[in-house]
Amino acid sequence: MSKQIEEELEVGFRAVYRIDKILHSGSSPFQTVDIVDLAPFGRTLLIDGMIQSSQVDEFVYHESLVHPAMLLHPTGVKTVYIGGGGEGSTAREVLRHPSVTKCVMVDIDADVVSFCKMHLPENAHAFADPRLDLVIADAKGQLEAAPDGSFDLIIMDLDDPLEGGPCYQLYTKEFYATAKAKLAPDGILVTQSGQAGIKQHKSVFTPIYRTLCTVFPQVVGYTQAVYSFCDEWGWNIAFNTPREGGMMMSVAEVDARIAQRLPGSELKFLDGVSFQGLPALSKLHRANMAAEERVLSTASGTFLFMHSQGLCVAEANAASANGGADVAAKRVG
Amino acid sequence: MSKQIEEELEVGFRAVYRIDKILHSGSSPFQTVDIVDLAPFGRTLLIDGMIQSSQVDEFVYHESLVHPAMLLHPTGVKTVYIGGGGEGSTAREVLRHPSVTKCVMVDIDADVVSFCKMHLPENAHAFADPRLDLVIADAKGQLEAAPDGSFDLIIMDLDDPLEGGPCYQLYTKEFYATAKAKLAPDGILVTQSGQAGIKQHKSVFTPIYRTLCTVFPQVVGYTQAVYSFCDEWGWNIAFNTPREGGMMMSVAEVDARIAQRLPGSELKFLDGVSFQGLPALSKLHRANMAAEERVLSTASGTFLFMHSQGLCVAEANAASANGGADVAAKRVG
Amino acid sequence: MSKQIEEELEVGFRAVYRIDKILHSGSSPFQTVDIVDLAPFGRTLLIDGMIQSSQVDEFVYHESLVHPAMLLHPTGVKTVYIGGGGEGSTAREVLRHPSVTKCVMVDIDADVVSFCKMHLPENAHAFADPRLDLVIADAKGQLEAAPDGSFDLIIMDLDDPLEGGPCYQLYTKEFYATAKAKLAPDGILVTQSGQAGIKQHKSVFTPIYRTLCTVFPQVVGYTQAVYSFCDEWGWNIAFNTPREGGMMMSVAEVDARIAQRLPGSELKFLDGVSFQGLPALSKLHRANMAAEERVLSTASGTFLFMHSQGLCVAEANAASANGGADVAAKRVG
Amino acid sequence: MSKQIEEELEVGFRAVYRIDKILHSGSSPFQTVDIVDLAPFGRTLLIDGMIQSSQVDEFVYHESLVHPAMLLHPTGVKTVYIGGGGEGSTAREVLRHPSVTKCVMVDIDADVVSFCKMHLPENAHAFADPRLDLVIADAKGQLEAAPDGSFDLIIMDLDDPLEGGPCYQLYTKEFYATAKAKLAPDGILVTQSGQAGIKQHKSVFTPIYRTLCTVFPQVVGYTQAVYSFCDEWGWNIAFNTPREGGMMMSVAEVDARIAQRLPGSELKFLDGVSFQGLPALSKLHRANMAAEERVLSTASGTFLFMHSQGLCVAEANAASANGGADVAAKRVG
Repeated sequence: MSKQIEEELEVGFRAVYRIDKILHSGSSPFQTVDIVDLAPFGRTLLIDGMIQSSQVDEFVYHESLVHPAMLLHPTGVKTVYIGGGGEGSTAREVLRHPSVTKCVMVDIDADVVSFCKMHLPENAHAFADPRLDLVIADAKGQLEAAPDGSFDLIIMDLDDPLEGGPCYQLYTKEFYATAKAKLAPDGILVTQSGQAGIKQHKSVFTPIYRTLCTVFPQVVGYTQAVYSFCDEWGWNIAFNTPREGGMMMSVAEVDARIAQRLPGSELKFLDGVSFQGLPALSKLHRANMAAEERVLSTASGTFLFMHSQGLCVAEANAASANGGADVAAKRVG
Repeated sequence: MSKQIEEELEVGFRAVYRIDKILHSGSSPFQTVDIVDLAPFGRTLLIDGMIQSSQVDEFVYHESLVHPAMLLHPTGVKTVYIGGGGEGSTAREVLRHPSVTKCVMVDIDADVVSFCKMHLPENAHAFADPRLDLVIADAKGQLEAAPDGSFDLIIMDLDDPLEGGPCYQLYTKEFYATAKAKLAPDGILVTQSGQAGIKQHKSVFTPIYRTLCTVFPQVVGYTQAVYSFCDEWGWNIAFNTPREGGMMMSVAEVDARIAQRLPGSELKFLDGVSFQGLPALSKLHRANMAAEERVLSTASGTFLFMHSQGLCVAEANAASANGGADVAAKRVG
Repeated sequence: MSKQIEEELEVGFRAVYRIDKILHSGSSPFQTVDIVDLAPFGRTLLIDGMIQSSQVDEFVYHESLVHPAMLLHPTGVKTVYIGGGGEGSTAREVLRHPSVTKCVMVDIDADVVSFCKMHLPENAHAFADPRLDLVIADAKGQLEAAPDGSFDLIIMDLDDPLEGGPCYQLYTKEFYATAKAKLAPDGILVTQSGQAGIKQHKSVFTPIYRTLCTVFPQVVGYTQAVYSFCDEWGWNIAFNTPREGGMMMSVAEVDARIAQRLPGSELKFLDGVSFQGLPALSKLHRANMAAEERVLSTASGTFLFMHSQGLCVAEANAASANGGADVAAKRVG
Repeated sequence: MSKQIEEELEVGFRAVYRIDKILHSGSSPFQTVDIVDLAPFGRTLLIDGMIQSSQVDEFVYHESLVHPAMLLHPTGVKTVYIGGGGEGSTAREVLRHPSVTKCVMVDIDADVVSFCKMHLPENAHAFADPRLDLVIADAKGQLEAAPDGSFDLIIMDLDDPLEGGPCYQLYTKEFYATAKAKLAPDGILVTQSGQAGIKQHKSVFTPIYRTLCTVFPQVVGYTQAVYSFCDEWGWNIAFNTPREGGMMMSVAEVDARIAQRLPGSELKFLDGVSFQGLPALSKLHRANMAAEERVLSTASGTFLFMHSQGLCVAEANAASANGGADVAAKRVG
């Protein structure tokens, strides 16, 4: 006999993971929270039944979420706002950077924070870091209340924007407009953007990309395979001030910045070489990003379709000077 | 009720796919062969119960297997040897290149070839191409019998080298030595190399890499996520004559060569941008490749351990001139 | 890897059977038909994805469906009408009785009949029996067209009466009134009656029982565990002329009648001893049968609720003279 | 997503139950213990991953284990020994009988007892009953230490006798000889006897039956479907003094004894009618019981084969005077 977790990855496609140990299984006022040891993945956090993080490869997810933006920032990031990320791993990666003077982490669920503190020892150091300002609150309201221009980097690390779901309001153009105002002039916003493999990237990855394009002058989508998610995962990075070359940075430059900005810190996944893979999207991905018209908005609570001649035109620069998946979004009219 | 296929991805981790239609289900003298429509993946070929190819993303696998080597070749590939690939998709990608004058495809299983001809219409054109020389035979013996130096490119597209399994003998250093002799001086060998994600890349990907290093002066491992395989997949490419920069090629150069060598042909996954992701392996991958000592050999029928000071020294050039996952294997002593 | 069939037995309870061989898998104009070898059960017929019969224990089901009525009949059954049963096994059991002069079997699906003839050799003899009159037609219409009083025994062997489903109309009081008219004065009707275990017997078993009570003067429900159905199964037997003791018959009497009516035939499950178990329902079953008010009717196409003071009053005789699960239904008013 | 329990019922046949709530999940020094709410069955106790008891039908199992012996006893049972049954349900059924003056319950696992006290409120009354003498110890040693002839009834309620398993030693002829000595002259022993459906009854049900036959002058096997076990379950009842008719008792007599021996107590499953079903085994069952030669013994720790002409001859009395599944075991030679 075995206890297992079954996850419906899509209709007609399920993954079944053997549970070796249940450390915590319960509900907060907001969601169900499980911390379990799964046979293939090790210690795993599930929120509302979906795998958030697993011991085997959470470092792939979190290094990919955090460090590209922090390395791309022109001068080095000092002030960071994390929406979500109650698990502590996102903050852990942020706080590797000595340049960071303040990291505000806002998660609505005190229980997730507290269970993760208890069961995920690798984040203990981050939770104890004096630069961390952990706030239990709604991440949207908290950001709205912040002074304009106060953050170098905003990292949104929430569940996908399901229609009618609790996180949807933090993926809308209205929210991104607010977020943009809270960024310093050369600030950056990066958001997790859901499944991004060859089949599923049109679910939320391309709509989030398009939505950010309506607000920011430059947006780049990037992806990385995450084994425990059974797919490539996607993020979108938005620049308040366009950066020449978008997300492109040579191997040497990436390694130099890592040496400079993360002295003494040892990343496990990311360096100059692996960085090249992040924006290296397929022809199909880039065509779908360019063609995507749906913009997430508070107006209807659902996806809006918006013609590309409308507010924003995105051009896929397949053969830009530096190659890569740099897409320039230009405001039109 | 539903009919399903259950695949044990690893102990304690199963995938379950709903079967929408069974087109063929039977056995050849060599293996079980199923062609089924699976809910998430479309038309799918399974050999001995393992998914080989699915409609949803076989183009990702086959474009990644075939075109990098064909684009990296200095002058353009004329003569090709395919070991395995009875499904026809590998040949299909090869034959997109007008430069190809002859493609010998050797698969031991006439039934797989015939079922795929019947049920995979996208390969019909390839099977009918006069340049294709389809031989039903053992791919090892057939290659041994070929004249030395007769191929520009050898593509090995077989199941993983399981100990005691039928394909093991086509992954050994002895076999690779034979294959090398059949290559033209600037010839290239590329082989599928199994699962290559953050957890599984040491199963066969790194041993194959190491084994090729004992024979060829330059070997590069590369990977690409394949959704229907539930992991990143890996290939190893071996150069008979070392190429400066290894597998590195700029976006512009890749796109130029595609335009030149595949005029009028439309790839769906690969171009200059996505090409950059192939050699962009993680720090962990590259450390494990460098540390790998196991060499597959006919001697014991099992993995041999061979110290890196022995026949071959592989240096991981993490920050080579052109960046990327170029690894130079140098013969020592 | 394995191909499997997954059956949802109830919400949150699934059975998964390994497929060892697929003999036939397709659709008729009416339903999907699969004949597969399943690891635990052997050769199995599934209709619309539900297990109908398995080699391991179809004899338990079919002996329980057919022989009780045939043994309870006062003088021995000569004319039989089978509604459904296209598989041939019901007819097989009927035709063991030399007393049978004519067995009309009416199934709407020629394909089921033909696939079963092809793959279920144990029924070949029955299909070839000259006493069998196999009619491909709607079992309801065919029975309506028969002369009144023409059958000693009517056996209804169809799928459960799901609301809106194709078989519902053959479980209604209107249909049973028709069937009653087609019975000889001492004729008997027996119908399969769905899951009948401690949890599920109120789904269709008790409503069918109650519905029959509105038409026939005496109805008895009986059950038997069927391993491949993962539950006890139920049947209801209705007597045109009440039989003293209902379904009760001593071990000796049952064995005597078997010897008499099935000379030379070897039943595998049923004899005097096992017969005692059929009407031996639990207290809970009998209380629910007595309390059941729902009557299946053509009027609404759904279950009708009918107060027990209405057309029919059923008394559960828990301690009747001969014991057992005999329930006498008396017309009131 | 759902958490589930998967149980391998046999090779190629699995049941999957959705977990609605985990009340307790851990290990004692002896076994794993889970108390979970399962969607189909309600609150369920699993020991070493196997379902022991479920809210939906544990009363079927426990009423069938306990009351037949207690009703068959000639004068009414006063002293009872329960081996195992730490869950408390077996004792609960025993203690319904006012005739019981002392019930010794011996389970090796204090944790099971304590978790069940905590989570199974329906047994609280039994655990608090002053007639209950709960001993945490090895049930074999404890019985061996008891004075000869001190029990009217011994109930063995342990896991199946798997070869090399912890319970095997309490199913051997040596153990049964000891147990017999501890019985009063008209005492009775009853033991759970594993799966007893049409396919699986030869696993442990018939060997236990045969083993008891080597010790006791009269043994009767009986079965009852238990929904949450996905099969019929079996018990064997052994009489120290043969009872005329074996297990046979008329509906009226059973009901009379229930009224007498369980005044004011309300059984949910068992009464005179359902009692008839218990010994009503199929022809196949009885043939296999008669043919069974394997005797469980301490000698080899595995099944011994013993010819039926040996120590004990069992005659299947298919048509005994009172009908039923009475089997008389006679000592020979």
